[in-house]
Amino acid sequence: MAISIAHLGPPGTYTEAAAIACLDWLKQETGQDAILCPYPSIGQTLEAVASKEAQMAVVPMENSIEGSVTMTLDNLWQLDTLRIQRALVMPIFHALLSRAEDWEAIRVVYSHPQALAQCQKWLDNFLPKAQPIALNSTTEALQYLDGDPTIAAISSQQAAQLHHLPILACPINDYPDNCTRFLLLSLTPSPGGAYTSLAFSVGANQPGALVTPLQIFAKRSINLSRIESRPTKRSLGEYLFFIDLEADARGASMQSALVELADHTETLKIFGSYDVLSI
Amino acid sequence: MAISIAHLGPPGTYTEAAAIACLDWLKQETGQDAILCPYPSIGQTLEAVASKEAQMAVVPMENSIEGSVTMTLDNLWQLDTLRIQRALVMPIFHALLSRAEDWEAIRVVYSHPQALAQCQKWLDNFLPKAQPIALNSTTEALQYLDGDPTIAAISSQQAAQLHHLPILACPINDYPDNCTRFLLLSLTPSPGGAYTSLAFSVGANQPGALVTPLQIFAKRSINLSRIESRPTKRSLGEYLFFIDLEADARGASMQSALVELADHTETLKIFGSYDVLSI
Repeated sequence: MAISIAHLGPPGTYTEAAAIACLDWLKQETGQDAILCPYPSIGQTLEAVASKEAQMAVVPMENSIEGSVTMTLDNLWQLDTLRIQRALVMPIFHALLSRAEDWEAIRVVYSHPQALAQCQKWLDNFLPKAQPIALNSTTEALQYLDGDPTIAAISSQQAAQLHHLPILACPINDYPDNCTRFLLLSLTPSPGGAYTSLAFSVGANQPGALVTPLQIFAKRSINLSRIESRPTKRSLGEYLFFIDLEADARGASMQSALVELADHTETLKIFGSYDVLSI
Repeated sequence: MAISIAHLGPPGTYTEAAAIACLDWLKQETGQDAILCPYPSIGQTLEAVASKEAQMAVVPMENSIEGSVTMTLDNLWQLDTLRIQRALVMPIFHALLSRAEDWEAIRVVYSHPQALAQCQKWLDNFLPKAQPIALNSTTEALQYLDGDPTIAAISSQQAAQLHHLPILACPINDYPDNCTRFLLLSLTPSPGGAYTSLAFSVGANQPGALVTPLQIFAKRSINLSRIESRPTKRSLGEYLFFIDLEADARGASMQSALVELADHTETLKIFGSYDVLSI
């Protein structure tokens, strides 16, 4: 039976492209077929797996320009049961799609807030009069483009093909080195790999409360490749810390580090160890 | 002559309320009058001060539920010359504004992305069929509400009064303890105070690259009240770190810490020492 992979839809989003790459990889590695199930938000995508409506989920985690996708981090912490199977790094080339014959006619540009932010300078330079409006995905507005030449959308070249829409400019991202890291998640234990992701809260807000957990890894020469703080949502000034480490949680050194870490944190959640696939 | 305070507009935004509090505080402390100058984005608000078009700026820095306002962090790092004069913590009570007579009729809810995110569960529960659409501010859509009873906006009670719009529900934020911290910035040196904000990049991505800078403060018992990472925008996996410390940069212990920190960071930017005002 085919595996179901939940992802942020509708069809044509960058997350769908990442989900297709996962589907190809699964077929190659395990021989298993998979089908894609688009969901309207990142929260609903992850909940589909937590509630066993879908077996796997692909969500964006971090972009090289705009940083963390906070919706993914907050849901990972809350849902608790999802484990990372693989990370995928995908280059992002944004395109301006519109039926406008004259750029001057464009009054509104729709896209996902991250895509709008990644093309902010380009929009200021080339479409200073157009109003950016954020939607849930890069493809949500595409259905309206045919009927209205005063609107445009920032989306992928694949989405333009899929919807038979003209590309007015591409790439329009402000920084050429624009990549997004996606995660493939499921309820099964992680396979292990070169990276480990975890998150924790620290009890007391006192000098060194964050240094101590970080020292646990530094003294074992385990490299911290990323740290991100998120509010606990209890009170201003209380944080959760999301950490990526360049080591497998099953290694002896990591095992002892994780035991020590549990003693110095209030709540500790380990999302798994996995390898990174570049697309 | 009156001082000009740039802030995110149009009138009725939470940032305007924070700017009004700053204006009152300035009058009380210094006897100086100030006028408010609304700008369409956080970037343009901060640039107005950097280019001396306005003398001060009020921008949101961090919300207790949704976390950092990344636009503010990225602009502070880039503009480089702005110094923090004061922080303000303001409770946030979101209201649903609409001319709809029946909630079932509401098809679209407009607001700033942070406000939409802070009311996400409420929207899922009470307006599951309405589409959330993000705009540049909480007040941008209010002008359209009179003409269209199928749309609603999430904004403040003050904005409802200002625009003579009915409040359908308030508060609608998912977490009752919802506060935002704002910064008052200008080009003059910081006045000093209980908190210091700074940011740095670290040269090498190696074990302990972040621990060393944090240890500099921990070993002097200087509490780190916040750490936030932002991408350098050079390549995926390279970060800047924004740090808030509970100490005045002019103190002897902080002075020696900052000298040591400069030796262990690639670029170090100190945004100033200041006190926090609760509204």
